[in-house]
Amino acid sequence: MHFTDAERDSFYRLVAERRDMRHFTPGAQVEPAALQRMLQAARQAPSVGLMEPARFIRIADPALRERLYDHVQAERSRTAAALPDERREAFLKLRVEGLREAAEVVAVVLAPDDGTVFGRRTLPQEMALASLACAIENLWLAARVENLGLGWVSFFEPATLTELLRLPEGARPMALLCIGPVPDFYPKPMLEQTGWRCRADRPLYYEDRWPEGEG
Amino acid sequence: MHFTDAERDSFYRLVAERRDMRHFTPGAQVEPAALQRMLQAARQAPSVGLMEPARFIRIADPALRERLYDHVQAERSRTAAALPDERREAFLKLRVEGLREAAEVVAVVLAPDDGTVFGRRTLPQEMALASLACAIENLWLAARVENLGLGWVSFFEPATLTELLRLPEGARPMALLCIGPVPDFYPKPMLEQTGWRCRADRPLYYEDRWPEGEG
Repeated sequence: MHFTDAERDSFYRLVAERRDMRHFTPGAQVEPAALQRMLQAARQAPSVGLMEPARFIRIADPALRERLYDHVQAERSRTAAALPDERREAFLKLRVEGLREAAEVVAVVLAPDDGTVFGRRTLPQEMALASLACAIENLWLAARVENLGLGWVSFFEPATLTELLRLPEGARPMALLCIGPVPDFYPKPMLEQTGWRCRADRPLYYEDRWPEGEG
Repeated sequence: MHFTDAERDSFYRLVAERRDMRHFTPGAQVEPAALQRMLQAARQAPSVGLMEPARFIRIADPALRERLYDHVQAERSRTAAALPDERREAFLKLRVEGLREAAEVVAVVLAPDDGTVFGRRTLPQEMALASLACAIENLWLAARVENLGLGWVSFFEPATLTELLRLPEGARPMALLCIGPVPDFYPKPMLEQTGWRCRADRPLYYEDRWPEGEG
């Protein structure tokens, strides 16, 4: 059960080289066994009270994928409209998804609440969603260690995905994941590389209390 | 930028052996360099629009840690009261935290909303929280690969933590993480081991749409 220094260093390299990918190699495939390993890693993520709230829906039907693509394009336009004027043009130059090119598209859905109380009496919605996000992060790192790219697309209206994926009452779509071989991994996050935004250049880490005046 | 099969297998072992730990070795320490590496891994997690909404507050003051402990005990009692009668006794036998014994305690807080629109026009709260959870999952795996345990304690009232950690308006506490050396890693999730609950024994994975009649 012990991990070596070499394994530790490899993990930190994995974390450092994981990217939110929007460029994929068209026509490429993901080996079914690799997809199963990745989904298994998602399944092994922590979940509050072992509630396992995440459901993964693989988009196999090309017509459904195309409808998802069209919807994401429409949401991209609505996002452009919601941005301040001076940011709109730069935004419209950014790629925000790889839905057509990616070998696989997987929607991730929060299942209807199963009433779990353990560890979520005070923050029930938040703890369910946090569990789902931990599962996606496991899947994301798994994709990278399989030398595959993954991009989390959140440009959608939940109501439209609910209809397209025929989700039951109470289920909530949270992600469209594009997964597959990529021409290259971005050396830096794409939003940094394009000058859209940089990570904060200060530690986001305090002691004992929130520092006064800190945002 | 390529990962080998050996690195892949090591990562999947890491995912499989990560546990939500509530038993820690009293009096043990976490090397400051290891804590920094782990926080750096959290920092490298994906965040929607690079908003980086997670803040990490290390609890250094023993009196503050004790107040957090007392509060979590009170919330544990409230959870017991909220459970169906037939589950109460079993619940009260479970350990739900290791706040006193763990070498380190780190609170994780969602920062006040910075107004990021990119990727979160339709689900702003959800995408901020999902980003925070991805950072915690990175930290969790990092702890395990450092051969340290981590437990996510969610037994608290947000208002009380807001007061104890002097959080500003709009900030939301999401986790108390116990981190440190452990006597042993549980071979299975502790909730399974104790018979409290098992993972579902069916795939949580569908094609194209939610299956009719499925919960």
